[in-house]
This record gives sequence, structure tokens and C-alpha cells, in this order.
Amino acid sequence: MTKHVIIAAGGSGSRFSSEVSKQFVNLVGKPMLMRTIEAFHQSFESLNIIVVLPMDQIEYWKTLCADYNFGLEHQIVTGGSRRFESVKNGLALISVQDCIIGIHDGARPLVTPELIRKIFNHADEKGTAIPVVPVSETLRHVSEDSSETVNRDDFRLVQTPQCFKSDIITAAFDVEYDQSFTDEATVVEASGVQVSLMDGDPINIKITTKSDLELAEKLLG
Amino acid sequence: MTKHVIIAAGGSGSRFSSEVSKQFVNLVGKPMLMRTIEAFHQSFESLNIIVVLPMDQIEYWKTLCADYNFGLEHQIVTGGSRRFESVKNGLALISVQDCIIGIHDGARPLVTPELIRKIFNHADEKGTAIPVVPVSETLRHVSEDSSETVNRDDFRLVQTPQCFKSDIITAAFDVEYDQSFTDEATVVEASGVQVSLMDGDPINIKITTKSDLELAEKLLG
Repeated sequence: MTKHVIIAAGGSGSRFSSEVSKQFVNLVGKPMLMRTIEAFHQSFESLNIIVVLPMDQIEYWKTLCADYNFGLEHQIVTGGSRRFESVKNGLALISVQDCIIGIHDGARPLVTPELIRKIFNHADEKGTAIPVVPVSETLRHVSEDSSETVNRDDFRLVQTPQCFKSDIITAAFDVEYDQSFTDEATVVEASGVQVSLMDGDPINIKITTKSDLELAEKLLG
Repeated sequence: MTKHVIIAAGGSGSRFSSEVSKQFVNLVGKPMLMRTIEAFHQSFESLNIIVVLPMDQIEYWKTLCADYNFGLEHQIVTGGSRRFESVKNGLALISVQDCIIGIHDGARPLVTPELIRKIFNHADEKGTAIPVVPVSETLRHVSEDSSETVNRDDFRLVQTPQCFKSDIITAAFDVEYDQSFTDEATVVEASGVQVSLMDGDPINIKITTKSDLELAEKLLG
């Protein structure tokens, strides 16, 4: 089966108070989106890489690739107003039948080739593969004027890439957007398919704030 | 107000498949508990450090301190069967009235002196200080045979040190153990006091698994 990954890189960086969009923020010498692409490039010999970018940032990205001499092959597709539409645009680019499709956050540049391989192989076997990690901290439910502890053993933190057999994800995305769609797993579940959870890796952090960026910088040493 | 920290270091390391208890596991050249103590030592000029250890590990810890030439001053107190009793034993050692008391996980060696100062100062002002970080991943509630996504914005991950004015925590711990006591904040809340949440730091991870240890090694890189 051929393998494809759609890297959703539409983040605005609003929680970052940064001039450039989050996926272009420099992480130890290069924009984090380049690191993300590199990890996928190293994972399988022939993996089709599709990067979804906001329309107004495609030219800037191409300039960055030239500036950094970044030559790893990838297709570029225009994002939608929401992650759901962005992924849909990426899916439309994949015409092959019977393949494995992963969806990954552009802001998870520390994903390792080993983890990517593990997740794709799990999806090949089970149809779906959602990497999760346990919650090792006490977890609190907060509301407007109070908060209370919940049992952390009943929860998991969900990472990406989330991988699916193509027929499963293509059918699932053939719907109108619903606000319950917070990631691809929820879209697939809404189509009536149960997803298969598997072990992720705590190093595969999502970079959302400046503190996360500092953490990633330390991790890259 | 004088400042005290009780470092709860009673973990068994069962999730670690390690010969030694978790807090003694070597983290880039020294047992992680030494790193934890160092951070507190650097935070305030006169901070009273109390380390709670299982009875059968106190001698081993003293040997380790001698082996590593570890001379930072700290009191040692015997732990109980549960975290609740261990903290209670630590509290019993603090005879000063009107002080600030922090409780910290021995398995959070990456806590920084800056974060420690921020939390103690918050407690000085508000009476309580519970460091929390947002959940940046999709969060799933799992049950025996299914799982579903919950709204991550309604949750926070709770870190330590959790700090309190002494009268608040002393009164709160003057009760029998209840299984709802998963951290010190829940004990204090059970006494009818609302706790004050504040920003923690994502680098202040809790080391629970081998993967967490690898993450910490990279962070100290």
C-alpha cells in the first residue's frame, strides 16, 4: 500500500505573539515545518508528503525553502478556514485507492521517523491508528468559577500523525463540518468507525506557546 | 514569612522496571532527587528543605549523598504508606507558625528556581498557589470498551510545587485519608478552601516512564 501524509500547517501563531505564522517560527536553525517534513521524509522510502498552507503564505513558504536550500519533495495545497477543510483539500489530492493516509500537525516537529513508522504500520494492520500518551499529571476540570480534580487514568492525550486506511478516512470526510470535529479521529468516529488507540511518544510535543518552543529548543539541544 | 518545601520522594518505580526507586534513578550524572533538591536550594536563600523517603531507603539515600559528595542541607523524614501520610509526616516537622509550605514531587527534577519563586510568591499573596498548564493535545476520555474526545479547554494539567499558607494546609491535613485526595490541592479543597490556579511551566515534567526519562535527559542535554 502506498503511504501519504497530509501535514496541516495552517496555524496562525496567535498564541505565540510572533510576527510569522507558528509553522515558520525558527526552531534551532530552521523553520519548524521543515523539521516536520524531514522526519516524514526519513520515515519511509516513498512517502507522499502533502503540506496544507494558508493561501497567503504559500509564496512566503516557497521563499523560505529557497533561502534555506530546502529541497525535500512535497506537494503544497491551499488550506481552508478550518482544519477540517484543510485536511479535506489534502485528501482531494490523493487519487490512489487502497493506501494509508496520515494526518499530522505542522507544529509537531519533534515527531520521530520511528514513531511515524510504528503508527503507519499499526494503521496498515488495524485500519486506524491514533497515538496517545497517558496523562502523568493530576488533571483538573475547570469551569468559570471553580475547578475540580478528575481521574487522570480515565484520560489520554492524543497526538498525531493519526493514520487511516484511505477508504475509512475518505468516507468519513465526505460530510459537512460539525463543531465536534476536533481532530481526524473524531471525524472518523462520527462516521461510525471505532478508532484504534496506540502508544505515542512524550517527545512528540505540540508547539503552541513560547514555553513549548523553549522546551523544543532544549529537546533539540 | 519563612518558607518550607516537603519533597515527596516515595515512588516505587514500578512503572519504570528499574532496580532502584524512581527518585534515585540517574539523570545525566546524578540521581534525580539531587537535581530536585538543587532547584529548591537555588530558589530562595533560606528555604527549609524536607525530603520524605520510605523507611527502607533512607540509609541508601545517605550512602548516595556520600558517594556523590552531595552536601546541600535537607531534613529527612520517613514516609507513610500513601502520599497523604508522607506529606502529613513532613508537615509535622514544621513547627513555625505563619509560614509558606510547598509540596513537590521528587520526580519533577526539572523544576526551575524561577518557577519555584513565582509559586511561593503567589501563595504568599493569595494563600494558595497551584501551578497548572493548558492541555495542548486533544484529550480523550477512555472507558473499558470505548473512548471519546472531551473539550480540552475545560481541563488543566496540574504540576507541583503546590504552595499554601501554613494555617491552610495544616488545618486541611488534620483529617482522615480519603481516596479523593490525589494531590494536596484536593485535600485543601476538601477543607472548604478554594485554591488559586496559576501558570506552571511545560518544562516541569513529571518523570513516570522510561520515555519521560529520555525526554528529561534531552532537556538537560
